[in-house]
Amino acid sequence: MYIGIDLGGTNIAVGLVSEKGEIILKKSTPTLKERHYKEIVKDMAELSKKVVKEAGYDISDIKAVGIGVPGTTDSERGLVLYCTNIAMRNVPLAEEFKKIIDLPVSLINDADAAAYGEYYAIGKKMHSFVLVTLGTGVGGGIIINDKIYSGFNNSGGELGHTTLYFDGKKCNCGRKGCLEQYASVTALGEQTKEMMNKHPESLMHEWVKKRGRINGRTAFECAKRGDQAAKEVKEQYIRYVAEGVCNFVNIFQPEMLVIGGGISKEGDELLIPIRKFVKEYDYNKDEPRTEIRIAKLFNDAGIIGAAMATLIK
Amino acid sequence: MYIGIDLGGTNIAVGLVSEKGEIILKKSTPTLKERHYKEIVKDMAELSKKVVKEAGYDISDIKAVGIGVPGTTDSERGLVLYCTNIAMRNVPLAEEFKKIIDLPVSLINDADAAAYGEYYAIGKKMHSFVLVTLGTGVGGGIIINDKIYSGFNNSGGELGHTTLYFDGKKCNCGRKGCLEQYASVTALGEQTKEMMNKHPESLMHEWVKKRGRINGRTAFECAKRGDQAAKEVKEQYIRYVAEGVCNFVNIFQPEMLVIGGGISKEGDELLIPIRKFVKEYDYNKDEPRTEIRIAKLFNDAGIIGAAMATLIK
Repeated sequence: MYIGIDLGGTNIAVGLVSEKGEIILKKSTPTLKERHYKEIVKDMAELSKKVVKEAGYDISDIKAVGIGVPGTTDSERGLVLYCTNIAMRNVPLAEEFKKIIDLPVSLINDADAAAYGEYYAIGKKMHSFVLVTLGTGVGGGIIINDKIYSGFNNSGGELGHTTLYFDGKKCNCGRKGCLEQYASVTALGEQTKEMMNKHPESLMHEWVKKRGRINGRTAFECAKRGDQAAKEVKEQYIRYVAEGVCNFVNIFQPEMLVIGGGISKEGDELLIPIRKFVKEYDYNKDEPRTEIRIAKLFNDAGIIGAAMATLIK
Repeated sequence: MYIGIDLGGTNIAVGLVSEKGEIILKKSTPTLKERHYKEIVKDMAELSKKVVKEAGYDISDIKAVGIGVPGTTDSERGLVLYCTNIAMRNVPLAEEFKKIIDLPVSLINDADAAAYGEYYAIGKKMHSFVLVTLGTGVGGGIIINDKIYSGFNNSGGELGHTTLYFDGKKCNCGRKGCLEQYASVTALGEQTKEMMNKHPESLMHEWVKKRGRINGRTAFECAKRGDQAAKEVKEQYIRYVAEGVCNFVNIFQPEMLVIGGGISKEGDELLIPIRKFVKEYDYNKDEPRTEIRIAKLFNDAGIIGAAMATLIK
């Protein structure tokens, strides 16, 4: 059995994961990210103990611990080199964790962990696999020959930071026109808001009033009810995503590409038009072609991926 | 010793390549691509014999033959599955070649061969390596862990067919706004022409009159002589290339990225501003960072890469 930990900017999620890659029990606790890293590690370890115990097991049943962090890691040396949202720089996270629970600890980038989790959930070895995550931002994870590919410096796979629109919208990364500015759920919210401003008659106003705020579902839900403005937002958004996906297919021609993140819960509403677009515009027109799917694990991908990644040789 | 063959739409180039990856002798002959493939193979084999003999060797000195083709190959079965410019579909190229010269034959995509050649020329093993070729089109080749990465269907690495400009210029691949439409030498020619039309006073008119036609060097050469319109074309073109390069750095974070193709002969004029751009806009701001270089082998990369790729296990 394994422990998988998803260290997020908001919560620490800990799961007891079976040999088959299934979560037996999971629990979470606030990260309180302003704290000293040793405090955070202590909570991670204590919660791990609690999860194992409550599931009816003992720490001696655990083979290894995988920790997914939102940043760059050096797993060999057990270091978190840099974190995007949590103040950690060159921190010996593994060593600190081992002081409390003395088990092998692997560190992994959280997007890579999610990709590995989704890959593992497919249940077969593949030549190549790409996860595109549409959430607050647009993230990515690449698996090649059963291993996570993250570049020579563990910073690769930033699929959201590739151009969709030359000199387009300003991106947090400093560039302009990145895919993230068009295909993230955050961007979808902005696109929805803009359209609502143009269309005071749209059903979306009523929808938002009932729910208190605009979110990624606003356009998708109102489009289902026949609202024209919502349909336009939805179709344009899907087109943005599809162009990005088609780029990654042309680059990687992966055996499978999976779309994850909050909006992927829309399922076929999102998947079918993307498959259609890629079928038409993929540079490779011959069989076999990349299989495109929606993520299976959603929020559990990080926990399961971190746990299963401890097995990567 | 090895034989490396670069089968192009215009010429067949054959080289005798040493164990160190150096060309001892090379020759070429027109492809005459409308012919039956068996005729083309015959010329490839006969030219190989000639090259070996003229260099003072015997076929028995040759360990293997590598053939780079402009299309998709199935090297295990020795097939050319599909060719972009030459009429070959599911053709047993290796078998046909072996009828004349009975040696192990490897087939490889030409862009992959060029990438492998440039990689080999660096002279050290690297975690990851990307070649971006700026020529008639924009091509790419990816080397990961000493092996060519070309997707599960051998059609990957189409770096030129990734979006630079959403809904931009129509591309031959059927999409709009592909990098190839902005960063190829063909595109540079079009950009030069457009600028010349707007600026009848530009030095570029005189330059073109002397040389008969606009080419990739027009803007670079006239910019060196202080022509403002030429400078604008050059700077805008370099910006297009730099955005593409930065995208590939964000995706792969390769240990090295090399820029090849005709225009790469401009050297530092091209390299320095691209390095500057990537240094500023790379998503990864920490060391170590991708080293960006200009190609070494140019036209020989295909021959050397095809020859050396016969050694890949």
